[in-house]
Amino acid sequence: MTKADETKELQLKFDSNGLIAAIAQDYQTKEILMLAWMNIEAFNKTLETGEAHYWSRSRQELWHKGATSGSIQHVKEIRIDCDQDALVMLIDQKNSGACHTGRRSCFYRTIQEDGSLTFTNA
Amino acid sequence: MTKADETKELQLKFDSNGLIAAIAQDYQTKEILMLAWMNIEAFNKTLETGEAHYWSRSRQELWHKGATSGSIQHVKEIRIDCDQDALVMLIDQKNSGACHTGRRSCFYRTIQEDGSLTFTNA
Repeated sequence: MTKADETKELQLKFDSNGLIAAIAQDYQTKEILMLAWMNIEAFNKTLETGEAHYWSRSRQELWHKGATSGSIQHVKEIRIDCDQDALVMLIDQKNSGACHTGRRSCFYRTIQEDGSLTFTNA
Repeated sequence: MTKADETKELQLKFDSNGLIAAIAQDYQTKEILMLAWMNIEAFNKTLETGEAHYWSRSRQELWHKGATSGSIQHVKEIRIDCDQDALVMLIDQKNSGACHTGRRSCFYRTIQEDGSLTFTNA
């Protein structure tokens, strides 16, 4: 078997909870929208449907992103990292945003040197 | 206490292994370079020094990125997500790249619809 970092074979490496980290990135602006988790079912659903599915760790259930809110994530491309334990999805984000707060990205605060947080303008 | 998603107070949420996911993103091109993990010590070292430190899960030790390879990651900004369990670092990546394979990004392969991988040109 070719090593995970040079093979053309998918060898998804899930963690001890059966999950893999998936980063959603805007395919046009390259803004990072969110980080969430997939189990094998969520991954397969994403590949089959072209819409991002995650595993909700808080609700412990399959989560079709946007199914209720309308904030569907159309997947343009999925990339995998060298050791095959992380994914980047290039996303066409429908509706206003990816974040449950209504913001476009979940990463709307900056950590200052003193450890406090400031809100970004984006 | 203000909720984690609207507070200006840092309330880092580590997982059951004491780790938090940290995405390194090129501060200019917005390319995602890698995803790695920090414990509280790695986070504090990163904030103090302005150079990315991680927790190596394979070696089980503090990992000053680039300390041996020269591929230091100068941290321009650290962002935190709504529920404070993921970080994005805007990075000035020294030397050729972030990946141990010598590539600039760890995300150099695309998953095709049939599940095979293709190497990107980047």
